[in-house]
Amino acid sequence: IDQKNENEAKAMIEDLHAADIADILDELNTEEAVYIFLLLDGDTGADVLAEIEEDDRRRFIKVLPIEVIAKKFIDHMDSDDAADLIGGLSDEKQEEILSHIDDIETAGDIVDLLHYAEDTAGGLMGKELVIVNENWTVLTCLRELSRQAEDIDEIYYVYVVDDDNKLIGTLSLKKMILSPTSAKIINIYEPDVMSVHTDASDEEVSLIMEKYDLVALPVVDSIGRLMGRITIDDVVDVIRDEAEKDYQMASGISEDIEANDSIWLQTRARLPWLLIGLAGGILSAMVISTHESGLIATPAMAFFIPLITAMGGNVGVQSSAIIVQGLASNSLGFESTFSRLLRELGGACVNGITCSSLLFTYNYFFSDSYALTISVSAALLSVIIFASATGTLIPLMLNKIKIDPALATGPFITTLNDIIGLLIYLSIGAYFYGVF
Amino acid sequence: IDQKNENEAKAMIEDLHAADIADILDELNTEEAVYIFLLLDGDTGADVLAEIEEDDRRRFIKVLPIEVIAKKFIDHMDSDDAADLIGGLSDEKQEEILSHIDDIETAGDIVDLLHYAEDTAGGLMGKELVIVNENWTVLTCLRELSRQAEDIDEIYYVYVVDDDNKLIGTLSLKKMILSPTSAKIINIYEPDVMSVHTDASDEEVSLIMEKYDLVALPVVDSIGRLMGRITIDDVVDVIRDEAEKDYQMASGISEDIEANDSIWLQTRARLPWLLIGLAGGILSAMVISTHESGLIATPAMAFFIPLITAMGGNVGVQSSAIIVQGLASNSLGFESTFSRLLRELGGACVNGITCSSLLFTYNYFFSDSYALTISVSAALLSVIIFASATGTLIPLMLNKIKIDPALATGPFITTLNDIIGLLIYLSIGAYFYGVF
Repeated sequence: IDQKNENEAKAMIEDLHAADIADILDELNTEEAVYIFLLLDGDTGADVLAEIEEDDRRRFIKVLPIEVIAKKFIDHMDSDDAADLIGGLSDEKQEEILSHIDDIETAGDIVDLLHYAEDTAGGLMGKELVIVNENWTVLTCLRELSRQAEDIDEIYYVYVVDDDNKLIGTLSLKKMILSPTSAKIINIYEPDVMSVHTDASDEEVSLIMEKYDLVALPVVDSIGRLMGRITIDDVVDVIRDEAEKDYQMASGISEDIEANDSIWLQTRARLPWLLIGLAGGILSAMVISTHESGLIATPAMAFFIPLITAMGGNVGVQSSAIIVQGLASNSLGFESTFSRLLRELGGACVNGITCSSLLFTYNYFFSDSYALTISVSAALLSVIIFASATGTLIPLMLNKIKIDPALATGPFITTLNDIIGLLIYLSIGAYFYGVF
Repeated sequence: IDQKNENEAKAMIEDLHAADIADILDELNTEEAVYIFLLLDGDTGADVLAEIEEDDRRRFIKVLPIEVIAKKFIDHMDSDDAADLIGGLSDEKQEEILSHIDDIETAGDIVDLLHYAEDTAGGLMGKELVIVNENWTVLTCLRELSRQAEDIDEIYYVYVVDDDNKLIGTLSLKKMILSPTSAKIINIYEPDVMSVHTDASDEEVSLIMEKYDLVALPVVDSIGRLMGRITIDDVVDVIRDEAEKDYQMASGISEDIEANDSIWLQTRARLPWLLIGLAGGILSAMVISTHESGLIATPAMAFFIPLITAMGGNVGVQSSAIIVQGLASNSLGFESTFSRLLRELGGACVNGITCSSLLFTYNYFFSDSYALTISVSAALLSVIIFASATGTLIPLMLNKIKIDPALATGPFITTLNDIIGLLIYLSIGAYFYGVF
C-alpha cells in the first residue's frame, strides 16, 4: 500500500470478502483506507462501507467527496444500510448526498427510512421487498419477480398484498416453482404471516424473530400496509448488542465501548460507576466510624469487613444477573414476584447456611473470641439473605417502572449491599459483644 | 384442559404458533402437557417438541410411548432437531426409537448426526439440503428441486456439487428462475461459497455467519464433500448463549441456569463462586490481622477498607469485561498485549487520579489525620492501577493457554483484587504512619 502499487493492491483485495476488507481498513490510517476504498468497485465498496465500524465510517465519510459517496456507494447499498449511513450526517450533508442520487425511487426510500428512530422496527427495516398482488397468476409473478429482484441480493420471502397494499400473507418460492403458471396467487399463498408495526422496539423485533425462527420479518404501518422487511443479519447484531449491553452494565461500563476504543472514550464510560463506588466507599467509612469505639475494643471485628462486603456484593450480583437475563430473553414466564422472591430466598438460605457454617468452623478453631465467631457467622447469613432479596427485587421493580433493570446490577447493587452489609455486621457485632 | 374438553382445547391450540404452544406447555404439569401433545398433529407436535425447554422435553419424552415419539414426532422433524432430541437419551432408547422410524434414509441421517459433538459444526448442522450437480441443466434442477424440497420447509440456498459430491458453489433461486431451462448449472452457479469443516466449534460458526451475514452455511468433511448445512436460527441461540454465558460467569454463576430453574439447580451453580469469595474473605482477614497493632493505634484506617476493596473490585471487573467481550466477538484486532496494557493503564491513571483527588479533598476537610488522608488516596490510586493491569492481563493469558477467559471475571478477579488491594493499602498506611 505504501508504494501505492495500484494493480497489486487491487489484485490482493479483489478476492477478499467485503467483511475481511472492512477488517483490514479498520487497521489502516484514513489516507491509506480511502486509497483502498477508491480502488473498490461500487458493489464491494458499498458492502465494505456497511461492514466497517461506525467510528471509522464517520472518518471516511468526512474525507470522501460527497458525489463519490452518493454515486459510487449509496447507489449500490441496501436502503437500510444507506439510511444508517446517511442518518449519522448533518442535515445539509444529507440533502447534498440525496441530491446526487440519480434513482429517485432509491432516494425516496432512504428519505422514508430516515423518519424512523434507529432502535425501532422502522429503523431496522429495508425497502428491498419482493411483493406480489393476490390477484396475479404465477406467470405474472415470475415476470414481476425478475423485474423487482434486479436490485435484490437474495430472496427469502415473497410477500402477498391486496389491492390496498395491505400485507395478507407470504408465498414460498418453492410453491411458486412447483405450481402451474396459470395458478392464481390467492389460491396458493400462505395466509399466516407474522409482522411487526414500524414503532416496535428493536428488542421486540429480536425476541419475535428469535422465538419463531424467522430469517425475515415484514414491517407494516398502523393500518397494515407493508412498509419494509427486517432481515435476520440486522437482528443478530441487536441480539449481541443487547446481551453485551447487560454484561457491560453489570460490569460498570455505561456506554457501548470496545477494547480498541480510545482511552478517553473508555474513561468516560467507566468513571461514572467508579464515582458511585467512591461515594459508597465514603458512606461505608462513615458507617464504620460510628462504631469506632467498638473497633478499638475489638479490632478483630475489622478483619472480617472485606469478607462481609465481598459476599454481599457477590450474592447481589448473582441474583440480579439471573433476573436481568430472564427479563432480556423474556423467559421469566408467569411466576409472581412474590413466589420468585420466596424461591430466591430459599436458595439464599441454603448458600447462606453453608457459608456461615464453614466460617463458623474456621473461627471456632482459629479465633479465641466466642462473640466474634457468632457475630461474623450470623452477619454473613443475614447479609447473604438480604443481598438476595435486593438483587431480586430491585431489577424487577425498575422493570415495572420501565427503567432498564440492568442499571441495578454491578457497581450499584454492590455498593448498596456493601453499606447495608456493614450496618448489619456492626450492629450484630455490637449486640453479641454486649451479650458475651 | 382440566375437564379434558378435547374439541375446545384442540380448537384453541390449532391457531397458535408452535413456539406459543411450547410456552404454554412449559407452564403445565406433565400429565396435562402430554395430553395436549397427543392432540397435536405430527408437524406441529414436532415443531413444539423442538421448541420447548430441554428439562421439559426430557420429562415428556420419558412419559410418551416410544413408538409415538418415533412415528408422530421424529418423522416430522428436521434431522438436526431429531438428533438433538435423541442424543439426550440412553443408548437403548436411541436404538428403540430409531428402529421405529420407517424411512431408512431419515434414520440414517440421524445416526450420522449423532456422531458429532453437540458444540461443533457437525452437531449444529442438519441434513436437509437441496443439492444439484454442476452438469445438470436448469430443467433437471427444477425437477430435482421439487423432489428434494418435499421435506424441506424453506429453501435458502441451492448447493452445487461436482461428481464426487464436493461442494463447489451455490445457485441462487433468483438466477435459476431467470435463466432459460436449457442453461447448464456449470455456467450460472456462483463459485464463491463459504463453508466450515464438521469439526469447527459452534463459536467459530457463529462468528463466521455473523461476520458475513449468512442465513445458512454449508458444512463439509475433511476432503470437501458436502455433509449438511447450518441455519441461522440455530446459530442465534449459540450467539445468545455465548453472550449470556460470559455475563453469567462474570456474575459468579457457573452453569447455564434460568430464572425459573429449581432452588437446587441455582444453588449448585452459585455456591462454588461464593466459596471462592469466602476463602478470599478469610485470606483478607488474615492479611488485616497481621496489621492488628496498627489498627488499634489508628482505627480510622479500618474505615476505608470497604472503599479500597470495592474500588479494586469494580475496576478489575470493568477491565476484564472489556477484554472478555473483545475476545468473544473477535474484535480485538491485531494490537499487541503490551500496547493494550499500556492503553488500559493510561485510562486507569486518569480514573485513578480523579478518584484519589476527590477522596483526598474529602479527607482533607473531614479527617484530622494527615497520614490517613495521604495513605488512603495513595492506596486508592495504586489499587486502581493494579486492578486494571490484572483485569487486562489475566483474561488475555487464560485465552492464550486455551482456558475460557470468562473464568477470570467476576468473583475470581474481585477476590484477588480484594486481597492485593488490602496488602497495598495496609503497607502504604504503615509507611505513612511511620513517617508522620
